[in-house]
Amino acid sequence: MIHITLPDGSVKEFQQNVTPMDVAKSISEGFARNVISASFNGTTIETATPLTTDGSLVLYTWNNDEGKKAFWHSSAHVMAQAIEELYPGVKLTIGPAIENGFYYDVDFGDHSISDKDFKAIEDKMIEISRGKHDFKMRSVSKAEALSIYKGNEFKTELIENLEDGTITFCDHATFTDLCRGGHIPNTDIIKAAKILSVAGAYWRGDEKNKQLTRVYAISFPKQKDLTEYLNFLEEAKKRDHRKLGKELELFTFSKKVGQGLPLWLPKGAALRERLENFLKKAQKKAGYEMVVTPHIGQKELYITSGHYAKYGADSFQPIRTPKEDEEFLLKPMNCPHHCEIYNSSQWSYKDLPKRYAEFGTVYRYEQSGELHGLTRVRGFTQDDAHLFCTPDQLDKEFKDVIDLVLYVFGSLGFENFTAQVSVRDPENPDKYIGDVKNWEKAEQAIINAATDKGLNFVIVEGEAAFYGPKLDFMVKDALGRRWQLGTIQVDYNLPERFDLTYKGSDNELHRPVMIHRAPFGSMERFVALLLEHTGGNFPIWLMPKQVVILSLSEKYEKYSEKVLNLLENDEIRALVDNRNETIGKKIREAEMQKYPFMLIIGEQEQEQNKITVRKHGGEDLGMISIEAFSKIIETEISKTLKQF
Amino acid sequence: MIHITLPDGSVKEFQQNVTPMDVAKSISEGFARNVISASFNGTTIETATPLTTDGSLVLYTWNNDEGKKAFWHSSAHVMAQAIEELYPGVKLTIGPAIENGFYYDVDFGDHSISDKDFKAIEDKMIEISRGKHDFKMRSVSKAEALSIYKGNEFKTELIENLEDGTITFCDHATFTDLCRGGHIPNTDIIKAAKILSVAGAYWRGDEKNKQLTRVYAISFPKQKDLTEYLNFLEEAKKRDHRKLGKELELFTFSKKVGQGLPLWLPKGAALRERLENFLKKAQKKAGYEMVVTPHIGQKELYITSGHYAKYGADSFQPIRTPKEDEEFLLKPMNCPHHCEIYNSSQWSYKDLPKRYAEFGTVYRYEQSGELHGLTRVRGFTQDDAHLFCTPDQLDKEFKDVIDLVLYVFGSLGFENFTAQVSVRDPENPDKYIGDVKNWEKAEQAIINAATDKGLNFVIVEGEAAFYGPKLDFMVKDALGRRWQLGTIQVDYNLPERFDLTYKGSDNELHRPVMIHRAPFGSMERFVALLLEHTGGNFPIWLMPKQVVILSLSEKYEKYSEKVLNLLENDEIRALVDNRNETIGKKIREAEMQKYPFMLIIGEQEQEQNKITVRKHGGEDLGMISIEAFSKIIETEISKTLKQF
Repeated sequence: MIHITLPDGSVKEFQQNVTPMDVAKSISEGFARNVISASFNGTTIETATPLTTDGSLVLYTWNNDEGKKAFWHSSAHVMAQAIEELYPGVKLTIGPAIENGFYYDVDFGDHSISDKDFKAIEDKMIEISRGKHDFKMRSVSKAEALSIYKGNEFKTELIENLEDGTITFCDHATFTDLCRGGHIPNTDIIKAAKILSVAGAYWRGDEKNKQLTRVYAISFPKQKDLTEYLNFLEEAKKRDHRKLGKELELFTFSKKVGQGLPLWLPKGAALRERLENFLKKAQKKAGYEMVVTPHIGQKELYITSGHYAKYGADSFQPIRTPKEDEEFLLKPMNCPHHCEIYNSSQWSYKDLPKRYAEFGTVYRYEQSGELHGLTRVRGFTQDDAHLFCTPDQLDKEFKDVIDLVLYVFGSLGFENFTAQVSVRDPENPDKYIGDVKNWEKAEQAIINAATDKGLNFVIVEGEAAFYGPKLDFMVKDALGRRWQLGTIQVDYNLPERFDLTYKGSDNELHRPVMIHRAPFGSMERFVALLLEHTGGNFPIWLMPKQVVILSLSEKYEKYSEKVLNLLENDEIRALVDNRNETIGKKIREAEMQKYPFMLIIGEQEQEQNKITVRKHGGEDLGMISIEAFSKIIETEISKTLKQF
Repeated sequence: MIHITLPDGSVKEFQQNVTPMDVAKSISEGFARNVISASFNGTTIETATPLTTDGSLVLYTWNNDEGKKAFWHSSAHVMAQAIEELYPGVKLTIGPAIENGFYYDVDFGDHSISDKDFKAIEDKMIEISRGKHDFKMRSVSKAEALSIYKGNEFKTELIENLEDGTITFCDHATFTDLCRGGHIPNTDIIKAAKILSVAGAYWRGDEKNKQLTRVYAISFPKQKDLTEYLNFLEEAKKRDHRKLGKELELFTFSKKVGQGLPLWLPKGAALRERLENFLKKAQKKAGYEMVVTPHIGQKELYITSGHYAKYGADSFQPIRTPKEDEEFLLKPMNCPHHCEIYNSSQWSYKDLPKRYAEFGTVYRYEQSGELHGLTRVRGFTQDDAHLFCTPDQLDKEFKDVIDLVLYVFGSLGFENFTAQVSVRDPENPDKYIGDVKNWEKAEQAIINAATDKGLNFVIVEGEAAFYGPKLDFMVKDALGRRWQLGTIQVDYNLPERFDLTYKGSDNELHRPVMIHRAPFGSMERFVALLLEHTGGNFPIWLMPKQVVILSLSEKYEKYSEKVLNLLENDEIRALVDNRNETIGKKIREAEMQKYPFMLIIGEQEQEQNKITVRKHGGEDLGMISIEAFSKIIETEISKTLKQF
């Protein structure tokens, strides 16, 4: 008999060689029908794998990430079989599950494949699935494995890197694949499949290797799930910040300037400036001071900070001078510069905290394949600030920063953020610089502040910055991918490295503590997420133009201008569309540009000194006075934008 | 007989071998006494040089730049003699006149020299001058010249590079120097001399060569002139922007960040932001749109623009990536980026002009010896804009830009600027890129606009940018050195290179014209000049803090805060000094910080709900109400800051 511990802590006794599926059935037949994957003592296994020792068992359904992973990994086998049957002679390589679905990298040889071929593959997959084939793992000797894949140089390479005795294959129906395991019990669970796209991918990600075809797909246990997912994709496409950014003329990229280096167009720059001004105002109230620092620094600066040793080789390389007597680096962060500003005076404890803020543009090398719209770029502007305080002030300062971040998120409608306390990876202490005691203090300070502020947070090991632990605020994009936006980080290390001091009340020199923080994270990523969140319908206080005045004809140009002036006096941002176009066309374009309010002006409006108001989306507020309209805007703004 | 044309156009007949001094005497004996130098057919000659052909003669006095040059060049000879007599065995090298005075580079051998030795040299110079020695030029053969300078490797090197038959020496008293000429008639004119400083200087400016001692000095025809000059220097020192920048805590430099890379401290950043906001507001009214672009661009971008071919070798070198598959450059100017923004859409003639503005930070390599405070740096922020217009719009756009520049200069109290139209050097057509006809058109457009706007301007050949002619606005610093601030440039070349187009009313594609412009020039240089101009007493609208509230004791803290709030409601920028210090100390420090107004608050003020107002500099405005004070500030602001 063996003892199996379940996630709820209960321990059950079973015959040796009981399978996870048996255990599931012992709980309930209904539950067992939904179980599609399992892990034993932390290792993924099959639901049919016999258990031979005591241990902890977790059973997964489609509703668990682990269950989805097994489902999609198994679907990759089915897709590989379908492709092999439809395109005889192709060479298979690898086919993992990913966050949303799975892919298989295939050497199609003489065949080629396009979206016209997707339907046939999908149909073949469902046909195979309906055959109700079990997924079965078996051990294979290295020699046998090599002989099976004779002629497939990719699998051969994989097998050669494995040790004899550890090699397993997975069979289903007539199909066999080199595989470490982790499948659903039977193909029949796969009820719906969709090939999403094909793309080029180098074998093992190395561009010196052969280019393969990566077939992206997704599968579901119900046809309805697939339909829902495709609708979601359709909706997400509309909210893709790259698409919206183009439609709203916010930003662009240029091949000549370089990939990953956004150019902010007038409307985008205005949006960005408004966000910056919003934060500046709150920061001023919170006692921050703005500074301006250059975008380069001597290599020496980053040797002092530790960045060069840590990231130098993988970054933009040093900038030499014609005489070759100096070396500079594009700044990857603003902190070293701010440390040098702190160091330009001798401070007393009475002067602290110093809070230096800068919208500092930094440059970090990302591989071109990693670049994505405004969310992953090579140059971005951090809404950065560094607080230098006494150890006694740390708690209050950290909490004040949390308040500021919550104010920023609240004003911009990000309610569904998650908070994450990132601490050291206890297994890799070498990844971090600085004293262990300081790390412990800093980690505890963050956890305390997050707890006191009532944040719903998780603690994640191994996600700390190399110089200190941090509290990150994460937000999902239109496709449900999670991105880090705001961040607050405690740092005991840079003050050491830059020999920062303040004179205490005891007249001795002491080390200040440093907080790095950026509520937006970066202007680029924040705007991207804001676009995907709002679909471009920003909170009205943020819209570059809040109102568009549409005249029915050129006859009303003068009155339009008058309305514009009156609105501008009330600090409402408006523009006039006096073009000689139909009002229908003007409204359609205004809808596209997401202007929150359209004011329609014709004979009647001019006579009565009024305006006809139409909200974005179509709601008609009728003909009202300009004063009444100003009040409406004021009320709308106060709904989202509070005082800090 | 020969015919001599004088600057007023008159032609006089003289005997051959007449000297310039003879000509001067023929005009008037009084005038001749002031003549100290001459040029004949554009070449500098001695006043004693016999004229042998017809030609144009100009006679110079101390009041001409050419006269000063001869005076100071001759003084360098006298100083060299004085040094040789005081330090036997020194080796002389070269000793030119400069903008303010002259220097001589001397190899002092075993001697050393410091400011304690200056007096003796000055005295010896005056002693020599009083000897009433004529400066006399004579021709010397190369062999003789080399034998005279045997043992002086510097003069030997100079002589070896000259051709036999062109070598001249200048004698006065017992002293002889290798010299091309251009002296005053007699040493006796030099009545006052002052050694200003000594500095190290490499022979021929090359650090691989021997380091010499550069002795800077100045001399005058009257003792009174020297006294005035030294007073001026004293005053200028107080106005040196580097000194004021430190006192006012505006900016700093850090060795670790790198020389020539300013760090803007909170007060400086606030000042800068205020200037930026001021310009942004005017630009908005003038129809500009802000954009934001990265600080790097692919090398390709600058190959397209022509910058790489022109400046690549002397600039910050390319930034490589870890994979070495891309090369980027720090941007030396914003225009290529703005061209790419223009190029991101297809414009119609109805959309033009497009006016893209950006406070764009650019980086240009300057040799470390050239760096000077904020006036010559390696990274600076241009208040840049590029206007893209049809050829028909060029005139109006150029004039509108002149209006904007004049508005900026007027609001900041720069009344004594000079305007300069910089055109091609007709002798070096290869220095410029682009079509000759376009150059001619552009040069004429600038001259027309400057004339129409009533600017007092000079035309200077050879000062154009390599891509187009320009109109520059020059301002002098505290030492009288002239710096370029605002600039407006016409460019027909970049539109070609970037293939910029717009669709004309004929539905065909046409080339727009481009205007580059920056009213401030750069934030760094502008702030430097503004500091030297105002001594830190900026126009009140610009002061980061307009008012400081000084409480007589901590008892009045609450009332001080109330006053602060009331002022802030009136958008007056104020701060409270509630420190436990004497009011005398507080006032002294407030004077140092140049706060335009100090409000003193004590028992009486609190009781009567008033404030006692003291202006910077000491003027007492008595005890008045806060409302009355707000009005005073408003009036002060409106004196300098008008509506654009």
